[in-house]
Amino acid sequence: MTTTISQDRKIAYLEDLKTLLRIPSVSTDPARKGEVRRCAEEVARQMKEAGLQAVEIMETAGHPVVYGEYLVDTKLPTALIYGHYDVQPEDPVDLWTSPPFEPTLRDGKLYARGATDDKGQFLCHIKAVASLLETEGTLPVNVKIVIEGEEEIGSPHLAPFLEQHKEKLKADVLVVSDSAMYAPDQPSLVYGLRGLCYLQIDLKGADSDLHSGVFGGAVPNPALELARILAQLKDSEERITVPGFYDKVEDMSSEERAAYAALDFSPEELKRSVGVNELTPEKGYSALESRTARPTLEVNGMLSGYTGEGAKTVLPGRAMAKVSCRLVPHQNPAEIAQLVEDYVRKLCPASMECTVQQMHGGHPWLTPPDHPALEAAAIAIRKVFGKEPVRLREGGSIPIVIDFQKILGLPGILLGFGLNDENLHAPNEHFRVENFYQGIEISKELLRALVP
Amino acid sequence: MTTTISQDRKIAYLEDLKTLLRIPSVSTDPARKGEVRRCAEEVARQMKEAGLQAVEIMETAGHPVVYGEYLVDTKLPTALIYGHYDVQPEDPVDLWTSPPFEPTLRDGKLYARGATDDKGQFLCHIKAVASLLETEGTLPVNVKIVIEGEEEIGSPHLAPFLEQHKEKLKADVLVVSDSAMYAPDQPSLVYGLRGLCYLQIDLKGADSDLHSGVFGGAVPNPALELARILAQLKDSEERITVPGFYDKVEDMSSEERAAYAALDFSPEELKRSVGVNELTPEKGYSALESRTARPTLEVNGMLSGYTGEGAKTVLPGRAMAKVSCRLVPHQNPAEIAQLVEDYVRKLCPASMECTVQQMHGGHPWLTPPDHPALEAAAIAIRKVFGKEPVRLREGGSIPIVIDFQKILGLPGILLGFGLNDENLHAPNEHFRVENFYQGIEISKELLRALVP
Repeated sequence: MTTTISQDRKIAYLEDLKTLLRIPSVSTDPARKGEVRRCAEEVARQMKEAGLQAVEIMETAGHPVVYGEYLVDTKLPTALIYGHYDVQPEDPVDLWTSPPFEPTLRDGKLYARGATDDKGQFLCHIKAVASLLETEGTLPVNVKIVIEGEEEIGSPHLAPFLEQHKEKLKADVLVVSDSAMYAPDQPSLVYGLRGLCYLQIDLKGADSDLHSGVFGGAVPNPALELARILAQLKDSEERITVPGFYDKVEDMSSEERAAYAALDFSPEELKRSVGVNELTPEKGYSALESRTARPTLEVNGMLSGYTGEGAKTVLPGRAMAKVSCRLVPHQNPAEIAQLVEDYVRKLCPASMECTVQQMHGGHPWLTPPDHPALEAAAIAIRKVFGKEPVRLREGGSIPIVIDFQKILGLPGILLGFGLNDENLHAPNEHFRVENFYQGIEISKELLRALVP
Repeated sequence: MTTTISQDRKIAYLEDLKTLLRIPSVSTDPARKGEVRRCAEEVARQMKEAGLQAVEIMETAGHPVVYGEYLVDTKLPTALIYGHYDVQPEDPVDLWTSPPFEPTLRDGKLYARGATDDKGQFLCHIKAVASLLETEGTLPVNVKIVIEGEEEIGSPHLAPFLEQHKEKLKADVLVVSDSAMYAPDQPSLVYGLRGLCYLQIDLKGADSDLHSGVFGGAVPNPALELARILAQLKDSEERITVPGFYDKVEDMSSEERAAYAALDFSPEELKRSVGVNELTPEKGYSALESRTARPTLEVNGMLSGYTGEGAKTVLPGRAMAKVSCRLVPHQNPAEIAQLVEDYVRKLCPASMECTVQQMHGGHPWLTPPDHPALEAAAIAIRKVFGKEPVRLREGGSIPIVIDFQKILGLPGILLGFGLNDENLHAPNEHFRVENFYQGIEISKELLRALVP
């Protein structure tokens, strides 16, 4: 890789990233509302320092959006860059090697909540602008940057924001860096994302926890009943049993499956990297297909009764599970959430009171892999890496991409600088410092390649 | 009921109970070790005040035993009274109406952790001794009192204690008040108790929680696998599917089932009192039989992944369940624990690392319902209540009763002053003040009835 950024600037850019990472901008936690705003202010400060104009903290009904732009010439194309400055909760905090909000360098990796998802990634673009403006005094195309604060809670106020500021946000292409490279030395271009629907199931048996000796055997047990329900949501071939779940799924084409098969993917390496003995893909599909191009149902959390140290002989009064589905075209999140809810209610025995809460959701997204907008990104990658990007789908959900497509009519470039083993949403999240610098280079080259 | 205790004394006795209840003697919590000892000291103080002799805090390898005695005449029989001053944890503390360690009177009930299990109950006997010594200057029989501090964690050091002090503890009959009356105005004599085995199951998938979008569909989910295992431990008729589980179960005799059927038991009343729509007894047995005379398997607790507010899209790395079985003659706790462990391991898929921890256990206990020792208790009950006691089995486990039988050769009188709706092991535990005073009267009459 050729680098165009001085060592001094590299150090300064990394310090700015650390400053962002020190702010616990956990959007789901009402107690951290002030921290989320403090983070927005720091993003705005760094945008201004980069030379962006019209920088503004724009209010929404939730956490604010940070906006900045640099407009060169109305005849040139406009790139709209999206990222998010909010992060996932840091718990379980005792599994972190270093404190989640004290960025710590180990082996060339920067450890902190939000390092790769998404603070380290969106900052690449802001620093690319800073670097270009510093060395060339201008940008090759117009740039608009939108960094929101609610991605981790499902971006509930982004669509209204886009609607409201349609004119201001007019652009030709959306650039999002909130996904992963295929491998440390192998960048990828993502042409598909999975959607999401998320539900919480609560069962109530007795009014309170009871003595399991006095009542056990006669009074129904919500923990057992919940286990019975969850166990019936997938069959032994890891297919989801919710009636109608697969009805609208567009299967992968034989061309796409052939391209997937040609990818250099090692199930052994995946097993080693996450620490499992076995993978459990849906029958008939490879592990890579199952985790990127097939829908899933996962239990995200489960709680009932006594879970502390030692033995407490309670018959629980309540049991709770969080369950979510990753969706592929043309599944509809609201429709699938309703199918899951209906099936859970059907499975729930009469002895239990069942409450199902439908939480946030997002649509799946798919672009033809040969879309012209992707070609500019491919050129940038070739320049910086000297190799062709891998093209594939991502398993995660970036529901906002579909909003940008629907509301602003933008095609999207999903250009990940992170890596899948960087513990996003988990303890010890980190971001490779090398990838941070490469991300800045690629962003600079991408802006150049967008010139017609 | 005729009462022989003055109003002044009643108030003083209740104040002494409150003093005991203010001490959070949670034996399972290492942080409360000092509180457990402080409780032992208060029990010793009250024993001395009652007039008991040789009062002593006797050390064990765990929490201490409090001992006191009053020996009248070696030719008279000796009653050995057992109770426990330790209590269950108070969580979930936010479901308590008044603080768990601040005894509060509402509607004639005293609310506090330990009120009915077992501080309120064992104190009846100490106060009976106090009352007899105050009014008569002596006792009708010899009395030895053993109050331990580890019942709620399975009495791990009681059997060695009994072995070590065999001579000192020599007696003719064991009296235990750690169970329930049949109804507020209907005392019972319990001739059977269920045993217990308790296990913790831990499944490990990935080394840490992962992003459910990036890895979901390929990496196995321990929460789902745990649900699948738990769901297979009981069938749709609520029979336990663990191979060999029922092999040594002695079924109820037809006489016993007829006696049970004749009892005034209302399933509707049970449903109403605990707040459930339906009862789920083992097929072929009544709810009363299922909760007292049949073995059970219950999930006592379950934990995996994200359980806080909102939605966190993790694929959990671990899942945990606490599971326990109530046992009947002639099931052996160690044997059953091993059968459950073996079956869980068999059900566990190769994708999971499974750890099973066998925690405390206790043997079931059964005495012929017409045993002579029970007759003295029946006489006492007739005197105080003017009616015949109901005779039945209890669903709970008092493993120590079997130790007293094995080590000291003592027959047992299980004479409960509590009620099953008093939320033992649950929030808002309480004890009816009326039953506290009746308990003292019955204890006094029992000591008189034990004179040959």
